[in-house]
Amino acid sequence: METRRWIVEVNQALLGKNTELAARNRERFHAHGLLVLNLLSAPGSGKTALLERTLNDLHGKLRIGVQVGDLQTDNDARRLMGRGAPVVQIVTGGCCHLDASMIAQANEKFDLEQLDLLLIENVGNLVCPASYDLGEDVRVVLLSVTEGDDKPLKYPTMFRKADVVVITKMDIAEAVGADLPALRENIRRTAPTAMVLEVSARSGLGLPAWYDFLQQRRSGFPA
Amino acid sequence: METRRWIVEVNQALLGKNTELAARNRERFHAHGLLVLNLLSAPGSGKTALLERTLNDLHGKLRIGVQVGDLQTDNDARRLMGRGAPVVQIVTGGCCHLDASMIAQANEKFDLEQLDLLLIENVGNLVCPASYDLGEDVRVVLLSVTEGDDKPLKYPTMFRKADVVVITKMDIAEAVGADLPALRENIRRTAPTAMVLEVSARSGLGLPAWYDFLQQRRSGFPA
Repeated sequence: METRRWIVEVNQALLGKNTELAARNRERFHAHGLLVLNLLSAPGSGKTALLERTLNDLHGKLRIGVQVGDLQTDNDARRLMGRGAPVVQIVTGGCCHLDASMIAQANEKFDLEQLDLLLIENVGNLVCPASYDLGEDVRVVLLSVTEGDDKPLKYPTMFRKADVVVITKMDIAEAVGADLPALRENIRRTAPTAMVLEVSARSGLGLPAWYDFLQQRRSGFPA
Repeated sequence: METRRWIVEVNQALLGKNTELAARNRERFHAHGLLVLNLLSAPGSGKTALLERTLNDLHGKLRIGVQVGDLQTDNDARRLMGRGAPVVQIVTGGCCHLDASMIAQANEKFDLEQLDLLLIENVGNLVCPASYDLGEDVRVVLLSVTEGDDKPLKYPTMFRKADVVVITKMDIAEAVGADLPALRENIRRTAPTAMVLEVSARSGLGLPAWYDFLQQRRSGFPA
């Protein structure tokens, strides 16, 4: 057999099917007047900590549901329990990202009509989840001050698709010697139109702006 | 709505479908008397270097085909060209692993009847590809002496499923201060039944054992 080289591009087929399912999720969410956020970051950036605080502080103000994705454990769901919000843990097995079909399955556990806001915590991973639309309205990418200011440049796909970038753990920025001007500049270069928030779930710094954002976006939806 | 916690396990459904497609691939490969290897490792462990050398050295002895998976580029396919073997580059887009449906698509580019051995180079990633059966006969996990001796313990799923573990870049083991006894012990603990080979694609060290393995396994198949 002679030497030959072919290229097979499979992402179109794979992602095409996901996009179709995501559109169905989005339609369903909108029919229920539900605002949906997809929260993405590397492992350990503080997604769960921000959710814990958000559930506590918005209790009684917005009816929130949570879907949280992890490779194996349900540790994150346990952390989020007891805060007045229903929580679904999606255990992905070997899969390193959430996809639209997983969200459709998890939706069956909720009465979507009883919710104003659905917060989806993706698997901790700055690469793969970027390619999978879940049917969300808003993509939120978190990044902690401990991760180095070059992250937006090294993971451009993730950051380019962000509607909101949340810099987390601001309370320890000085202690870890974070170069905040460089970090802000790299976010601006990679995600020029994204809203940027700087918060600390521990100290509460910057959280009012995060809550304002959630409530304003939600108010654009039918009751 | 009262506080509740649910767990949705999605791996069964997802992986179930993959397993089904993998079984179909395997049937097809066996019908053609084709031995199939799935080569897995972290990025930069030397999968492509081992394949380059293998294609050169077994040219005229075994009829080899190659499928190589990458997130974006076709650099690896270019490296493997011109060595007498047909090469298919699978570009996965955002997806961090090969799955059985991608292999089925790539198979269409070959005349499987004209091959003895199919070498599939997976995406460089020690996590996700472990969960996806492609229809291979043999799983080969590569690990270079530069990666640290704790890798088998940190990525147990990948190593537990290995039929063969290949320690690569042995020619620089001393220069990088690799603790080979610890590495061998950690492989034995995680993959007790796997065959372990120690090779250098650069110096040729250990390659005869690798070629013997390929030819012996292939000889168990019908001509």
